[in-house]
Amino acid sequence: MTDTPPSRPVSRRGLLTGGALAAGGALAGGAAIAATRTDAGKSPAAADTTPVASVGALVEPFHGARQAGVTTEPQAHAAFVAFTLRAGTDRAALGRMLRLLTDDAARLTQGKPALADTEAELGLLPARLTVTFGFGPALYRAAGVDDRRPASVADLPPFRVDRLQPAWTGGDLLLQICADDPISVAHTQRVLIKDSRPFATVRWVQQGFRRSPGVEPGGHTQRNLFGQLDGTANPRAGVPMDSAVWVSDGPAWLHDSTTLVVRRISMNMETWDLLGRTDRELAVGRRLDTGAPLTGTAEHDEPDFAATDEHGLAVIPDFSHLTRAHVTDDRLKILRRPYNYDGVPTAEGHADSGLVFTSYQADVARQFLPIQRRLAERDLLNEWTTPIGSAVFAIPPGCRPGGWIGEQVLG
Amino acid sequence: MTDTPPSRPVSRRGLLTGGALAAGGALAGGAAIAATRTDAGKSPAAADTTPVASVGALVEPFHGARQAGVTTEPQAHAAFVAFTLRAGTDRAALGRMLRLLTDDAARLTQGKPALADTEAELGLLPARLTVTFGFGPALYRAAGVDDRRPASVADLPPFRVDRLQPAWTGGDLLLQICADDPISVAHTQRVLIKDSRPFATVRWVQQGFRRSPGVEPGGHTQRNLFGQLDGTANPRAGVPMDSAVWVSDGPAWLHDSTTLVVRRISMNMETWDLLGRTDRELAVGRRLDTGAPLTGTAEHDEPDFAATDEHGLAVIPDFSHLTRAHVTDDRLKILRRPYNYDGVPTAEGHADSGLVFTSYQADVARQFLPIQRRLAERDLLNEWTTPIGSAVFAIPPGCRPGGWIGEQVLG
Repeated sequence: MTDTPPSRPVSRRGLLTGGALAAGGALAGGAAIAATRTDAGKSPAAADTTPVASVGALVEPFHGARQAGVTTEPQAHAAFVAFTLRAGTDRAALGRMLRLLTDDAARLTQGKPALADTEAELGLLPARLTVTFGFGPALYRAAGVDDRRPASVADLPPFRVDRLQPAWTGGDLLLQICADDPISVAHTQRVLIKDSRPFATVRWVQQGFRRSPGVEPGGHTQRNLFGQLDGTANPRAGVPMDSAVWVSDGPAWLHDSTTLVVRRISMNMETWDLLGRTDRELAVGRRLDTGAPLTGTAEHDEPDFAATDEHGLAVIPDFSHLTRAHVTDDRLKILRRPYNYDGVPTAEGHADSGLVFTSYQADVARQFLPIQRRLAERDLLNEWTTPIGSAVFAIPPGCRPGGWIGEQVLG
Repeated sequence: MTDTPPSRPVSRRGLLTGGALAAGGALAGGAAIAATRTDAGKSPAAADTTPVASVGALVEPFHGARQAGVTTEPQAHAAFVAFTLRAGTDRAALGRMLRLLTDDAARLTQGKPALADTEAELGLLPARLTVTFGFGPALYRAAGVDDRRPASVADLPPFRVDRLQPAWTGGDLLLQICADDPISVAHTQRVLIKDSRPFATVRWVQQGFRRSPGVEPGGHTQRNLFGQLDGTANPRAGVPMDSAVWVSDGPAWLHDSTTLVVRRISMNMETWDLLGRTDRELAVGRRLDTGAPLTGTAEHDEPDFAATDEHGLAVIPDFSHLTRAHVTDDRLKILRRPYNYDGVPTAEGHADSGLVFTSYQADVARQFLPIQRRLAERDLLNEWTTPIGSAVFAIPPGCRPGGWIGEQVLG
């Protein structure tokens, strides 16, 4: 009963080759869906002709040198599940746990139920499901392999703007579950948490969303609930993305790894909504409608920080988010992959809205921290946003069929 | 700044005529999307050729004799927002409130920002957004029009299985916000709550999800997080649906109205997952994979309750959900339109999963209550499910352009 073959007449082999790539290009609005890890971003031309009924059957490959879910075109729904290891979960136990979770993820991402799947029918439509494994600092200590921890995988230094809550902070092991369908995410979350129980407790779960598949036409950047385009400055696919995100040398446990920063950013809709449009655009440094820098006309125009207006003032103010976050060297950029959250409002109707901000980068200290320091120091957007959670994880390399995630670190 | 025209080259007129109908048929997996309220269910042939990039621009009509969001093919995401009227919100104030909310809904559902929309860019891709207004019993009393309250719109009698929590129960005014995109739902929720503040506080918000647009191929019934098909027995489109859902006579405030029961059903994944597949199928009375009754082979086969096995036992047990919920007379059926919820699990990994069960019917007392009484009495599924919230609302008739929802009741 547990390994029910998919009942649908879709060729999974076909999905992994040209057909899926063309389809993925349209789905993702012009950006590529990886056929293998390292092909990410080498995109076929977008063609808005994918029949909508194919969304559920689309498959992202699980096995590869690098983990999926990083440079994968962001799916519509995500659950970030952070665990605390139980006392006694040592190197050997972690090996058993990760073999089990890897097997679950390898099956579910390919549209097959997990071995002990009690809701097998919910495992048949992955909708580009990916499961990405992250290791927190304490995991390396618990396994006695702290010498294999990437140096920058550690608690972030405190920032003046932080109001961190323990309920959203830290974590020994992270599973980032993303899919274009919320039932696929919910079912995968259930299976992976059940199989984790002998080894770990749930520390926090953050669920988030972006646009549903097919909602936005080609090439659009995500909007957050402030209405801003979010992610314009991401590194371009190909060499720039590779050099920003992936570690390209070092021992087996570092090569093809990356790091992940997860920050829960509460957005104060009440005070933001009191601002006029001009003030908002000055705070962001970009137009709200097009996302163009205030000195340009299109989203991806290079900002001109030297430009002044008729009063001699900078067109893009020094306090703007764009100015503070701007990086030109690809190797110093970060890959933002944020999800919106929208909880239950208060009785008085104040929203619980915000962002599960996530950034991938080869090195937290070299790439994320300098940007974060500049933002914490002066970004005017801090007036309307508050970091309430923070965690850092290493994303170890991927694995081949028969292998398991973490084998280079723990094996 | 607030009424920014849509920047996309999509003809909204085209979306409201043949083009959208054909597209909608494919999107909805074979069922029709209403071009006008009363055309619901008169379906063109499904054709899985809708380009995915059109999902965001799809529009459901707002104006009509009946409200949208009832027989509308269910969208992927929903927020049910229940309000408590502030002291002093009388008939005149309710009229002002509902004129304002009607105007917001009429604009946002058509892909136009609300008049005072502070995140105008989030209002341009409705993704089949509907806003459905419901009136709780206390609204009629507050307005001094209790004689216009449909008799069956009242608190449900208590059931043995209920464990109702005040946090999920009751409500004076309900806004059911549904769209195929979660950002469309979040933005609409924000706008409508802001404009409700002078008149009401937020009593509860329940958010839920179904499959993303395009995930399932044509004609599939929703699965819940137990893995069951849910909604197989809904009345067929056309005359059966009309006679089950809509009031077809009476004064203006009743004609073309319906009623809504919202029940929050907690599903105990822990104990359900201990059951074997055979026991699950006996509890439901249907196959888990196809949804066919245990006496049949296809989902929509008529169950044969007289059939016995080789031991003389009923093939479909008397305690099965199918047996207890079964209704043959279309006029006594209910239209189930449920959404899944999946909250944050406990530290020990116990899920907070369940169903925002909603049913539409012309008369709660004639249709919903007899089924609910039979289920509460004996349905074996009660072992794994617990109603933790309950509310009943009248869904007043729709309105013409320039009118407002509730004008027949409060005007």
